Order: sequence, then C-alpha cells, then structure tokens
Amino acid sequence: MFEATKVGRSVSKEEFKEQRDELRTQLLEVQRQLRETHIPVVVIVAGVEAAGKGEVVNRLNEWLDSRGLQTFAYWDLSDEERERPRYWRFWRSLPPRGELAVLFGGWYLAPIEHRFRGLCDDAALDAELSRIVDFERMLTQDGALVVKFWFHLSEKDQKRRLKELSRDDRSRWKMLPEKSKFSEQYQLFEHVAERVIRQTDRGIAPWYLIEATDNRYRDLTVGKTLLQAIRARIAQPLPMEPPPTADPLDLPDSAPAQITLLDQLDLTQKLERDLYKSELKRLQAEINELTWTAYKKQRTTVLVFEGMDAGGKGGAIRRITSAVDARLYRAIPVAAPTDEEKAHHYLWRFWRHIPRAGYMIIYDRSWYGRVLVERVEGFASEAEWRRAYSEINDFEEQLVEQGAILLKFWLQVSDEEQLARFHDREKTPYKQYKITDEDWRNREKAPQYKAAVNEMVARTSTEYAPWTLVEGDDKPFARIKVLSTICERLRAALAEDVLTSMRTVKRCGDHPERLAETESGD
Amino acid sequence: MFEATKVGRSVSKEEFKEQRDELRTQLLEVQRQLRETHIPVVVIVAGVEAAGKGEVVNRLNEWLDSRGLQTFAYWDLSDEERERPRYWRFWRSLPPRGELAVLFGGWYLAPIEHRFRGLCDDAALDAELSRIVDFERMLTQDGALVVKFWFHLSEKDQKRRLKELSRDDRSRWKMLPEKSKFSEQYQLFEHVAERVIRQTDRGIAPWYLIEATDNRYRDLTVGKTLLQAIRARIAQPLPMEPPPTADPLDLPDSAPAQITLLDQLDLTQKLERDLYKSELKRLQAEINELTWTAYKKQRTTVLVFEGMDAGGKGGAIRRITSAVDARLYRAIPVAAPTDEEKAHHYLWRFWRHIPRAGYMIIYDRSWYGRVLVERVEGFASEAEWRRAYSEINDFEEQLVEQGAILLKFWLQVSDEEQLARFHDREKTPYKQYKITDEDWRNREKAPQYKAAVNEMVARTSTEYAPWTLVEGDDKPFARIKVLSTICERLRAALAEDVLTSMRTVKRCGDHPERLAETESGD
Repeated sequence: MFEATKVGRSVSKEEFKEQRDELRTQLLEVQRQLRETHIPVVVIVAGVEAAGKGEVVNRLNEWLDSRGLQTFAYWDLSDEERERPRYWRFWRSLPPRGELAVLFGGWYLAPIEHRFRGLCDDAALDAELSRIVDFERMLTQDGALVVKFWFHLSEKDQKRRLKELSRDDRSRWKMLPEKSKFSEQYQLFEHVAERVIRQTDRGIAPWYLIEATDNRYRDLTVGKTLLQAIRARIAQPLPMEPPPTADPLDLPDSAPAQITLLDQLDLTQKLERDLYKSELKRLQAEINELTWTAYKKQRTTVLVFEGMDAGGKGGAIRRITSAVDARLYRAIPVAAPTDEEKAHHYLWRFWRHIPRAGYMIIYDRSWYGRVLVERVEGFASEAEWRRAYSEINDFEEQLVEQGAILLKFWLQVSDEEQLARFHDREKTPYKQYKITDEDWRNREKAPQYKAAVNEMVARTSTEYAPWTLVEGDDKPFARIKVLSTICERLRAALAEDVLTSMRTVKRCGDHPERLAETESGD
Repeated sequence: MFEATKVGRSVSKEEFKEQRDELRTQLLEVQRQLRETHIPVVVIVAGVEAAGKGEVVNRLNEWLDSRGLQTFAYWDLSDEERERPRYWRFWRSLPPRGELAVLFGGWYLAPIEHRFRGLCDDAALDAELSRIVDFERMLTQDGALVVKFWFHLSEKDQKRRLKELSRDDRSRWKMLPEKSKFSEQYQLFEHVAERVIRQTDRGIAPWYLIEATDNRYRDLTVGKTLLQAIRARIAQPLPMEPPPTADPLDLPDSAPAQITLLDQLDLTQKLERDLYKSELKRLQAEINELTWTAYKKQRTTVLVFEGMDAGGKGGAIRRITSAVDARLYRAIPVAAPTDEEKAHHYLWRFWRHIPRAGYMIIYDRSWYGRVLVERVEGFASEAEWRRAYSEINDFEEQLVEQGAILLKFWLQVSDEEQLARFHDREKTPYKQYKITDEDWRNREKAPQYKAAVNEMVARTSTEYAPWTLVEGDDKPFARIKVLSTICERLRAALAEDVLTSMRTVKRCGDHPERLAETESGD
C-alpha cells in the first residue's frame, strides 16, 4: 500500500515559492466559501513518527485564515475526559458549520497505538474501525467534509529523521528502538497502518497517502489536496443520502388505526392512595441509598423521560429529584438549541452535557426529539430521522460502555385523560405556564405521534437501554412504576461487577486504564 | 449576629400548605419576568452543617420551572479545574441572562473551610473576602441579581441533627467531633461564618440569615425572600452604576494633540535584513525550547496581541506559531461573540477558553476590545468600559496566580505606514480578505483610538502583566522585538521556582494542593 509514498518525490525551492502564493489565495477563497455554505471540515493528520505532522499543521495555520480554524491534540487525558465515554473528547473538537478543525491523529490515535503495542489483536482493532466508519459516516451525512492525511516515510528515511529528533528531548517518541529491532517495529507499524487505512478508506471519508520525505513536496501536496477536496464538496451541495430504506419493522405511518404496542397498554390500571403513599416513601428511601452507592462506585445514571404532553413527566421527575441529594443529580429540560448547538450535529448538545462519573442526570425530553417532534413537524428530513435510530443506539451504547446505567421512560395517557389535564392546567394558577397553544396543536397530530412513538420504541429498545412504557392515566400508578423500575435496575446494575457490566469486554482504543484492567482480567 | 436565627420559629403543616401554592404561582410568574428582562440570578446556598441545604435546593427545584434553573455543587475538583485559576469553575456555573443558578456554597465554600480547618488566618481570609466582594460587584454591575442564603442552627439543634445524619453514611460531614470538642468547633465555625458574612454583606449582594430548625419555616422563608429579591430587582431596571469617576491619570479623551506614550515611540527604528534573518532563527529555536520547558513545568503562557489595523499582529503571531509545536499552542482570533457568549458577562468567553496548564495560548485581539473598539464605537457604556480596567486587572491577576506567564503587545504603526499597508493588501490576492470597509472607517477614528490605547496601557500595565509597546513601522524590527521579549520573559519565569513566581503566597480558598504546598513552604 505504501509503495507510492517511497518514490522520492520532491519540490525545488523555486517551484515551491512559485506555487505557494497562488495556493494560499485559493485556500483562503474556499475557506470563505465554506463559511457561506456552512460546511464543517474535519482534517485528520496522521502517519508514521517523524513525518513532520506538526510542521504540516503549522503550515496550514500559516496558509489558512485562523478565524475558523482550530487545532486539537490528544495528549494528557484529563479526568473529566476519562470519566466520560471516550468519544466525548472528539465531540468536543468537532468544528461548527463553516469552520475547520485539524485533529492530530483524532480517533485513529488510540486504536493504532494499542494495536501496535500489542494491547489488542486484529479482531479488536477491526471492531473499533467499524465504529470509526460509522462515526465518520454520521459526520458526512450531517454535511461535514472529512479529509484524512497519512504521512509516510521509508524505513531508511524514518530512521534518519528519528535520530535527528532524538538528539534533543522534544520528541514525544519515547525511545528509539535498538538497531536490530528497528526494522521489526517499522514493519509492525506498517502492518497496523495498512489495516487501519484499508478498513477506513471509504468514499465518504477517504485517506490521502502522502510521501513525507521532502517537506516542500509534502506541504504543497497537503495544500492542494485539501483545496481539491473542499472544492469538490462545495460543488456537491448535499451530502450523499441513502434513499429511505424499506421498513423492515413494518410500521407504516399511514396506518394509525393499526393495533400497536401503545394500544396494548392497559391504561385503566390504578393504585390505591394508601398503598401509593407507603410505596412512594419506601422507594424514595431506596433511591436515595442507591444514588449514594452509584456515586461511590462512580457509575453514572442517565434517565430519559419522553411522553405525551401532560403525560406526567414532570410529576414523575419531581418524585425522583425530591428523594435524591441535590448535589448528586442534574435535571436537564431540553428546550430549543442555542446557535452554537445549531451549528453542530444534533447529538452534539447532548454529548456536551454528559456528566462526570457517579452522578444522575435526568433528561426531561431528550435526543429522541429527532424521531418524534422533528419527524412529525418536518424539522428533520426523512433521511435524517431514519438514520437517527442507529445514531442514537450507538450514542447510548457508548454511554453504557463507559459504565452508565441508562433508563428510558415513555409516559402514555389516554385521549380523554390528556384533555382533562389540559383543562385542569388552564384552571390552576401555578400550572398555567405548562400549557400552550402548541400543546393543543400537538393533540391534533396524535396519530402521527403515535406512529413515531411506536417506531421509536421498536427501533431503539435495546438490551442495554430498554424502553419502559408507562401507563399514565393514574398518576400514582405511573409514578410507582417509574420509581420501582429505577430501583430495580439500579440495584441490579450496582450489584454487578463494574467490569462485567460494561458490555464490550475489550475495545481497542479504550481509555488507558480500562484497557489495562481488561487485560489483567483476562 | 446569629441570635435571630435561634428563636425557634416554625410554621404549621396547614399554614405551609396554605401559603405554598400561592408562593409557587408567584415564583413562576417572576421567573417568567426574569426571562423577559434578561436578568441572571445567582443563588448561593450556604450555612452550618445539617441545616438542610440540600432539602432547600430540592424545594427550589420543585417550585420553580426547571427550564432556566441549574444547580451546581463543588465536590471533586477535576484536574481540568485544578490546572486553571480557581474561579474558572465558578465562571462555568454562571447562569445566562434570564436564568437562575443555585450554587452550593459557591465561592464561599473553600475560604470558610480553609479558615475553619486552620489552614489560613483571619488576614488571609479577609484578603479573599475582598476578592469576593469585587467579584459579586462585577456580577451585579453586569445586571445579575445575587441572593445569598445562610442557614443557621443553634448548637443544640445542630448536634441533634448531626447525630441523626451520622446514623447512615450519606452525609459528607466527615466526622462528628467528640462530645467535649463539639461546642468548641461550633463556636469556631460561628466565628468564621460571622466574619465572612459581615465582610461580604453588601447592599449589592446581601446575605439572608435563615433559621433552619423547622423545615417548613425554612423553605417558605427562602421562597418568599427569593420572590421579594427578584421583584425588587425587576422593579429597578438598571443595576446601580457608580457615576464615571474623575480621571486620576489625567488622560482626557478630548486632547488628541497631547503628547502621549504612543507619541514617544520611535517608529523609525529599523532592523537590517541579514541581522533579522539570523536573529529570527536564533529566537525561534529558543522559543521552541522554552515552550517545551513550560509544558514540562506545567506553566501556561498567555500572549495577547492588540494593535492598529495592519499593525502587523498576524505576521508577528505567525513567526511565533511556526516555531512552536502545533500541539503546544492555540491561536484564538477574537471575533464576534456567539449568542451563548452574549448571554454572559463579557469576560465569560475568555474564561471559557483558558487552556489547561502547560500550553501557550495566543490571543489575536482579546478582552481589551472592551476598552478599545467597544469604547470608541459606543458598544459599551462609559460606566461599563471604565470599570473594565479593574475587572481586567483582576482577571489577569488570577491567571498569573495560577502560574501563567502573561505578555501583552501593542503594535503601533504610523499613519503613513498604515495607509501604505492598506493599499498593499488591496493589491495582493491572498491579503485581500484582511481589508474591509471597517478598516477604512476605523482610520477616521484614529484620535479616539489613540486616547483609548493610552488610557488602556496606563491603567492595565501591571507588574505581573506589563504591556510591551512595539514600534511597528519596520516589520523585521517589530517581530524581533516581540520574539525577544517573549524569550526573555519566558526564560526568567521558567528559571524561577514555580511557587515564588505565584505572586500571592497564600490565598485562603486556593486549590487544595496549592495551599498545602504553600504551608510547607512557610
């Protein structure tokens, strides 16, 4: 694969100067166009040691307008990063629409290093690479351009360059292997690199292999390649969208009369008032204990509440929060996104607020808005909400891998009960703020919402993050069902060993200590 | 001071119920008004152990609309927080305009605890309290309402409550002192609390002392007090502004012809081309070394570049960045604020981007926009930009206290040279993006800008963060002056012992290990 990067291409000083100014002008021009077309660009800079990745990034910073260009390196994992799913740090680096981010290694860094150091095998590496492919597809489908550069050197050239670097202590290359080992190491690294590139070189986010022996050739080629890639992306106004897939779950929108999951709920279930009071007290005491245990065990709890308007989300949430120490939870009511949030993928604002390990976070509405209100109201295109199911499943999987306990509740009420509650809200002074014209409008779209909910539950109720459907007509019954479900799940999860509870036993590219723990547990 | 909190006030269950619904309705109403009037509200919840601070916060969460209400506790200092000035975590918690934030202890927590544990004396506590007063004044002048609750218990009541708590392991109260010591501890805590409250109880941000023995009385009183405070703040549409002070530096805006600091610069200074080349090479090599040393010593470098349009900021910055490993620096071009940034104090967006320890951060324009463009263009009122000087000085002091090395450059060019550069930019393709109509307009306001610059330099050139004025007509001369200044300052600062370089030897409320180090260094 790397033969073409070892032919000794070079550019003379004069040629370089000649081409540079023209290239700069053009790069600045496409950068301006990016801003106008709101396309975010992710540039990955990777390759063998001593290929001059830092110099390339400096060059890009010199040639491009620094307004709208950010560089990210991934040294020194902070504990804030360690306590969150490992892609959190990459989400933090994603550029807003119209800007560029240059990432040193990005999500390739850890998997390559782990495989190279023998901490995982090819199969584990492959599993991680398929996650990367999904992630990059998600970015490009959302409109981003992903440009990946791999800088390569022949064995001889790398050896020479490393020797030069090792003269001072600047390099992060920890140790130059002994002479006899160098060739072996070089070949192993090339093996890993080839595997990584082969599996992640997709049309949506191709790799560009660049010979790095001559700095001038290297930098000019990077500039020209980037220029071309941006131009091509701008010329093609929409990212490739797969046509909406046929619906394997057979849940047509147009059949509101069909019997569905939601119809099977027995909304007449009730709980007697005295029993409610005693159960509430018991469960709240248990939740209080369990949240302290979760805090000590550094397990995050994520609760997602979705439901019909006046379905009783707020009441159920208050029964939880009044039982939990205010320092241990955060309730996040999901409202309209800010403009910084709008400038990113719709999941960005949820990644942004992932708590540190050990806390409880309660979402009053959530990322499911994408497949509910955004679908029904047409704020998201069909292609967008359709692919959201797998994006959401992947997001939740990453939360669970990190050790989070994730519960999702849908609160359903009958048409009559909803109407009664709307009228009650209009009459009770401190409830009036909860009822708006929009609620009345939403009622008219009940069949479409119902279809959306059914499909959502069917497609995103996973083993690691199941939906709990709550019969909401009787508030006491609903609240006790919510609280007892939480207690049950927390009790079971906290009794488990943390490691076995993480579904993926071994992921290449994991946070360092997790990988180490897993190894010793083998 | 606390006598009034020990009289045994209580509220019956019936009274509570009677008043609660009305109070809730009114709280929701003022919360709505807050949103409309864009007033941010900071609520501090502090007091003796076991007074039920967590319960109060739960109550507020129950009564208020959770949209626009966030709660923050300050456990578990993360290393991301530890590596930044200690107020960074408080800036992170400040609510956007129109919303509320409830802070457990907030900036009072650490000073009280340190003084109580004997880690600092009264004088050190007082010094910290005066910083707090400044900080709260800054928030209120920016339009915020700061409401501070102190919950108190008599010795007997506290003892009883602590015993109840100590039965389970939920409390953060590490150990209940022995019987004989309890009274002593209680009195010491009361001594510290009284001192803190007395010194920070200003009209702009008053303390409300609340008897916490009876939960119902406590919660109702909090609700009513908060309601009143918000109503009063809404009724008074603007925060109290001190009248613009007379100008002790005697730098009247209206005297552009006056001889100033800037006029004294000898703009004819030049550097010969060969000398420039050799010096540049030498200094760039040194900067490269120094940034690695700074990284190892975990010292942050903050470079601020301000200057006239076409003053040569970009060129100077590029001479630095091309010498530094791209993983070690971040260049931040300061553009228009986002809407999230606009919803906060103007310094918020700069706090937001403070780097972790050990990195270099380069600001291409900065917080000084407040006293330059915002002053001249009238975007900030006179009261606003006048108080910005001390706000900025305090901000920079906090950076330096944390160990940052802070350098500020003003690049000055003559009128003729600026004109020549404007014309050049219009002619050179890759420079055209740098010249706009605004630049031409700014030129017409040169006298006002000059006055603003003179005052800025006079008022914010501090011992710990001096301004360097750079004669910019000859680019080689200017660049070498910038680079050699940086090398000199970095060399000197990195040779120092880190501890002595932090100007404030002892600050009550410091990050834990800093305080400990200081102690042992005493």
